Amino acid sequence: MTFDVTILGSNSAIPTIKRNPTSQLVNHLDRFFLIDCAEGTQVQLRRNKIRIQRINHIFISHLHGDHFFGLIGLISSMHLLGRKKDLFVYGPPQLKEILDIQLEASQTELNYPLHFHPTKPAENETIYEDEKLCISTIPLNHRIPTCGFLFKEKQGKRRLIREEVKALNIPVEQFFNIKNGEDFIKEDGTVVSNGEITKDPHIVRSYAYCSDTSYFEPIIPIIENVDLLYHETTFMQDRAEAAAEKFHATTIEAATIAKKAKVKRLIIGHFSNRYDDPNLLLDEAQTVFRNTKLALEGKVFEV
Amino acid sequence: MTFDVTILGSNSAIPTIKRNPTSQLVNHLDRFFLIDCAEGTQVQLRRNKIRIQRINHIFISHLHGDHFFGLIGLISSMHLLGRKKDLFVYGPPQLKEILDIQLEASQTELNYPLHFHPTKPAENETIYEDEKLCISTIPLNHRIPTCGFLFKEKQGKRRLIREEVKALNIPVEQFFNIKNGEDFIKEDGTVVSNGEITKDPHIVRSYAYCSDTSYFEPIIPIIENVDLLYHETTFMQDRAEAAAEKFHATTIEAATIAKKAKVKRLIIGHFSNRYDDPNLLLDEAQTVFRNTKLALEGKVFEV
Repeated sequence: MTFDVTILGSNSAIPTIKRNPTSQLVNHLDRFFLIDCAEGTQVQLRRNKIRIQRINHIFISHLHGDHFFGLIGLISSMHLLGRKKDLFVYGPPQLKEILDIQLEASQTELNYPLHFHPTKPAENETIYEDEKLCISTIPLNHRIPTCGFLFKEKQGKRRLIREEVKALNIPVEQFFNIKNGEDFIKEDGTVVSNGEITKDPHIVRSYAYCSDTSYFEPIIPIIENVDLLYHETTFMQDRAEAAAEKFHATTIEAATIAKKAKVKRLIIGHFSNRYDDPNLLLDEAQTVFRNTKLALEGKVFEV
Repeated sequence: MTFDVTILGSNSAIPTIKRNPTSQLVNHLDRFFLIDCAEGTQVQLRRNKIRIQRINHIFISHLHGDHFFGLIGLISSMHLLGRKKDLFVYGPPQLKEILDIQLEASQTELNYPLHFHPTKPAENETIYEDEKLCISTIPLNHRIPTCGFLFKEKQGKRRLIREEVKALNIPVEQFFNIKNGEDFIKEDGTVVSNGEITKDPHIVRSYAYCSDTSYFEPIIPIIENVDLLYHETTFMQDRAEAAAEKFHATTIEAATIAKKAKVKRLIIGHFSNRYDDPNLLLDEAQTVFRNTKLALEGKVFEV
């Protein structure tokens, strides 16, 4: 029942020798989703032993370079390494144009289908859905149109208690209805209540990714109660004014959002280059929200 | 009298953990010129302790991603790090469009002037010139329009022999003509020949960068006698057919060009991912041209 997040970059703005700008990989039941793709992401994937061809869906939050300058390179490498299967890219409408002009300039005709889905960053819209997972956009408040992404498992069905099913000799053709909550009626008319023969469905887990944004309370109802929240934390609280001006968030602001939204755990990243030691940011965030961790390169967080 | 080349990437096609795609830095008398700019180049510059703001001229050979995907990131970082002084970028005309659309998408108005000079890859044209150096394009033969770059020092003037100047009490106002080859005439009419009071000018040095290209003899007259030639060597000779099909060169082909052009030294790079150990390529090239070296990351070659 894997559902985890691998951090590929923790820095804001520019890549350095130690820290990469933003990218994360979400693994949900061995399906791989990439969120943002800064310059150097493909090497980060290699470094973390993630095979790039396993990624089928890429989500770009906004068109600042530290969130997408690595995308064309990744797409190009997938092509050069012989990819045949479909790739789905979700991002602001202009991203398509940016990719197209570069593919055209290199006279590259991709040998796999690339499907582009323009996002509407101002809306909370479902952009991906399968039997087990739903991904929707989270409108954020940044200098340019930006959205986060909410990964939410779908409510599963009730689970049969094997021993009871066997003891009562319940016919297979009734499993479907019972999983949907119906009682079982024996041949003699006795009713066995659903609660006696089924367990609760697996708990639904959720991950919310919020970068980049200023302190923005309208996201609270959308991310409420998530198991894991990533919230950008570009600055410490003494630079709250600079953060607001640049539509970024501070430690205290990220932690306050986490607290108000009653999330279970918070991870913070997108640190300004001015901070050599991100532990300073961690300490400050923890004064407001204890269950905070640093989203550092190579770290894997279970949702 | 610095004139050297630092290798920032030796790989073809895609970046890996060990090898970066193409980029090189030319230092001529402490002026810094960047040639090609693959993804990851800005981090490679940091790794080699080269301050990015010292680069004022960037030359892009062609629009395959492994030669320019890092350019927009470098331009963007120069901006974010407060650059004010002019930057000059030389490359195929479409490159301007690619940069503009990405700057526009991020609503970035650069706080420094970026001057773009479209190259004509099919011509041997001077694209940069100052008192000491001349840079011209070398038409190459690749899948898409591509040119190399020839860095050639300008012939300096004759150099005064200090002791003679002093002994003869030559007036300063005559220095200019004497440096240009004129004799000195004493007050009594005696002629002192130029050879007695001057030394030969500094030797003119030259560096030719040729990537990417198939085996292409028309470059020989342009690069003839250069001190240092970089020639791409994507494949070993057993893959000569694949090389030709892809408009790339082999070890033997690069070495043959070096030999026919009577260059002093050859460096080879742009190795295919199939080769874990580039020494195999070196050994093969040296069978034809002994004075060959590997253009590996971090190596510095004096011109």
